[in-house]
Amino acid sequence: MNMQAIESIDKLRLVLGSLRVGSVVGLVPTMGALHAGHGRLIQQARTDCGNVVVSIFVNPIQFDDPRDFQLYPRDLSSDLEFCRARDADIVFAPTAAEMYRRPLKSFVDVAGVTEHLCGAFRPGHFRGVATVVMKLFGIVQPDRAYFGEKDAQQLATIRRMVLDLSVPVTIVGVPTVREADGLALSSRNRRLSAEERRVAPFLYQTLQLAGGRISAGHRDAREVREEALAMLKHREIRVEYIEIVDPDEMRPVDRIDGPVRIAAAIWLGSIRLIDNLLCAPA
Amino acid sequence: MNMQAIESIDKLRLVLGSLRVGSVVGLVPTMGALHAGHGRLIQQARTDCGNVVVSIFVNPIQFDDPRDFQLYPRDLSSDLEFCRARDADIVFAPTAAEMYRRPLKSFVDVAGVTEHLCGAFRPGHFRGVATVVMKLFGIVQPDRAYFGEKDAQQLATIRRMVLDLSVPVTIVGVPTVREADGLALSSRNRRLSAEERRVAPFLYQTLQLAGGRISAGHRDAREVREEALAMLKHREIRVEYIEIVDPDEMRPVDRIDGPVRIAAAIWLGSIRLIDNLLCAPA
Repeated sequence: MNMQAIESIDKLRLVLGSLRVGSVVGLVPTMGALHAGHGRLIQQARTDCGNVVVSIFVNPIQFDDPRDFQLYPRDLSSDLEFCRARDADIVFAPTAAEMYRRPLKSFVDVAGVTEHLCGAFRPGHFRGVATVVMKLFGIVQPDRAYFGEKDAQQLATIRRMVLDLSVPVTIVGVPTVREADGLALSSRNRRLSAEERRVAPFLYQTLQLAGGRISAGHRDAREVREEALAMLKHREIRVEYIEIVDPDEMRPVDRIDGPVRIAAAIWLGSIRLIDNLLCAPA
Repeated sequence: MNMQAIESIDKLRLVLGSLRVGSVVGLVPTMGALHAGHGRLIQQARTDCGNVVVSIFVNPIQFDDPRDFQLYPRDLSSDLEFCRARDADIVFAPTAAEMYRRPLKSFVDVAGVTEHLCGAFRPGHFRGVATVVMKLFGIVQPDRAYFGEKDAQQLATIRRMVLDLSVPVTIVGVPTVREADGLALSSRNRRLSAEERRVAPFLYQTLQLAGGRISAGHRDAREVREEALAMLKHREIRVEYIEIVDPDEMRPVDRIDGPVRIAAAIWLGSIRLIDNLLCAPA
């Protein structure tokens, strides 16, 4: 089947209705500006599912900063080519008017996992994410949905929403894809200056060093965190947060007694980058 | 097929999975203590759908008053008999532990329609309703779901949630069933004393009189409302609210220029009763 690009919710439902019976539908929700990280999500969906739907929607309600929304990279024709080359069946690329036909009054809120890390710095962000993902699930009715582990708090939020509300979708987390120097792929990377791009890998290097300390037996989260903060000291870098958290609850821990996630957000100029690393004590 | 009574979410999904293909699934969500009003919901679902699921769950998170939750009538064996007699296929009657296996952190909020009427007096009520209905939709995955018009604000809330979040369920509103004297059927009626039961029909009589004023050409909502309040003056009755609202947005209107809903809540002793009437100017 040739890949179909669809903008209308009703048309998507019609097309999916005829495909669905007897076949597993996989959804890869994206905001476009696709890169090899998305490629890995699509590849995993392609391996698991008879029908692969990629959604491309720069969701206004999850941006806490209007300027970030405005500057978020958009390139639909490249994205369609990208999806076609990876054998997606359907790209669902609605306009904002199609998604939000009337003033949106209904929202999904997930407490707890959204309290710390990005949730503490981006008010309304995870409400916007949970709401649009629930809506995409309602539209596509996928059996499986694929999310990158780079956005670990987003993944934890969606997992919690699905458990709490018995949403009939299997959530699949897919490992982060990195550049050769360790920088996690992100649509925002293309907005980095040459100097910022040179500095950006420090983020992952720091997470790795902190992870190494934990593997080596350090149990005091504050100590490991202070060391990581010191490593990130650089005139180009403004640290928003670096935390060592419980990987399910996304809550900072004092002592490292089991698997933890080290998560950080930094600013390089006007670009915000996040990354994280799961690690377990020896 | 004999009616099946099921408590487990996983078992319900398994059973429904085998029934679903090629057949329409209708859900009638209830809190039990079933009466002829629920009977009419089931009957409508039976007419429309190949598979009829009745859920019975006294949902703790929609009660703003713990005493009301505690005293809410429960009689599962009568309810099962009631559903069997009306040819339901499945009764889903989970425990609270089955529905909320872990502390609930995810909620659906619907703004706007929940602001006035009951929403103004029962904080958290419609959040609890929207959340449990979304969860029941996730569990049952019905094609159609049936709600009584007696709970007009609840129906408006669910309709808005379904529109906003593209929930793939058709919402069917079913007219209120009344006693011969006009009292709307409610599970709470059985808790009325003889004297309270005698007074209770004043509520609907008042709505009818107010509706008559509107049909007769009165356009000033405040005047009609004041008259209705005067009619409800009785030593047994405490009026919580009586409002004339836009039937979709559930927002009080000043002038009556199109169809409106007159909605009221009263207390008779410790029992709260609600009712409403849709009416259009001549």
